[in-house]
Amino acid sequence: MNNENIKNIITKSFPPWVYLSDDEQAKLLSNCSLISFNNGANLHNGDEQCLGMLIILNGSLRAYILSEQGREITLYRLKPGDTCVLSASCILSEITFDVHIDAEEDTQAILINSAFFANLREQNIYVANYAYQLATERFSDVMWALQQVLFMKMDQRLAIFLWDELSKTTDQTIHLSHEQIAKYLGSAREVVSRMLKYFAQEGIVSVTRKGITIIDKKKLQALAL
Amino acid sequence: MNNENIKNIITKSFPPWVYLSDDEQAKLLSNCSLISFNNGANLHNGDEQCLGMLIILNGSLRAYILSEQGREITLYRLKPGDTCVLSASCILSEITFDVHIDAEEDTQAILINSAFFANLREQNIYVANYAYQLATERFSDVMWALQQVLFMKMDQRLAIFLWDELSKTTDQTIHLSHEQIAKYLGSAREVVSRMLKYFAQEGIVSVTRKGITIIDKKKLQALAL
Repeated sequence: MNNENIKNIITKSFPPWVYLSDDEQAKLLSNCSLISFNNGANLHNGDEQCLGMLIILNGSLRAYILSEQGREITLYRLKPGDTCVLSASCILSEITFDVHIDAEEDTQAILINSAFFANLREQNIYVANYAYQLATERFSDVMWALQQVLFMKMDQRLAIFLWDELSKTTDQTIHLSHEQIAKYLGSAREVVSRMLKYFAQEGIVSVTRKGITIIDKKKLQALAL
Repeated sequence: MNNENIKNIITKSFPPWVYLSDDEQAKLLSNCSLISFNNGANLHNGDEQCLGMLIILNGSLRAYILSEQGREITLYRLKPGDTCVLSASCILSEITFDVHIDAEEDTQAILINSAFFANLREQNIYVANYAYQLATERFSDVMWALQQVLFMKMDQRLAIFLWDELSKTTDQTIHLSHEQIAKYLGSAREVVSRMLKYFAQEGIVSVTRKGITIIDKKKLQALAL
């Protein structure tokens, strides 16, 4: 990829371009480079890496957080044409959290290096504004992910409820309707029924007209933790 | 509160002030008003309300989301001196999610009305930049909350909460229902009750109708670390 190609992409994919002085434009181009990541490569882990802004040409990036137990929560994905700002999060002091970013496919991007970008952001309010605007877009992505995850936490709540009820039974069977369970959990019957179907597929319970029979106590307990 | 008082607050608490023209400054002041919310009032519910920017003078606001099951997840709290941007989220097209915002105490704020703020943001890049910068700060708050909800162990989360509440009491007793605590922690009542029962068995608290009395502060602190 030659400089003319890079310039074509920057002018299209970096909106503050039109607000840069000739000097800033020239310096920006000389601080852009082509960068490639193999499928699976970790390009940002929240420690010391601060690559800079990435304009994705092809492939895809995934941002996620990692629990101490190694559980991953995907926050968002970036596709060709998108710009990755959290790979330059060191530049924005308002960003106090860390994310991991991996390439999910072989990925090529244009990198605006972070030291140059930090300066440009100080000098040019349109560049600063663009970085915060991108961060705000990612904020929306994360809120969407959060709501997905919370909805999925229903499995744990149901498992806790069944575990508690199990201790009151003699025959491993909980004689409550889906409607009753939904009421206890402050949920909707369809949500409970769907989750019980999932538990049945996982071999945790069997659901009959009599009630809910716990088949695999160990699996249930693991979910309730 | 007279206009001179409002001007004093705006010049201190609205950083883009120095980048406004004389005309913009005058118009801003004439579009500010004092607004009061009673403890418990809902001032933003994500539907059609779009009050505008709020500079908090006293009291406190809590932003949260509601899951489909009606569970509340606290995202962040705003205190005197903070500026609430999500009460003007209609102005920022990048914000595609809805939050609820309630007053947690009797709260007074200066309101910059949303129609005027939308115009000012179009005209003045420093104002736009400030709004996105605030949104980015809230993004960090939400990431913190997300990590609490997803990853921190429930016993630790409850211990931290009780420890914080303990400092506000005079009689070592926290006068909150399990339901209220669950709301604050973004958890379910049954989870909180079970954990409190465990804490009681461990001799950390005693649970009565009056509330939760801390018996062993050292043990509680150890859990909260």
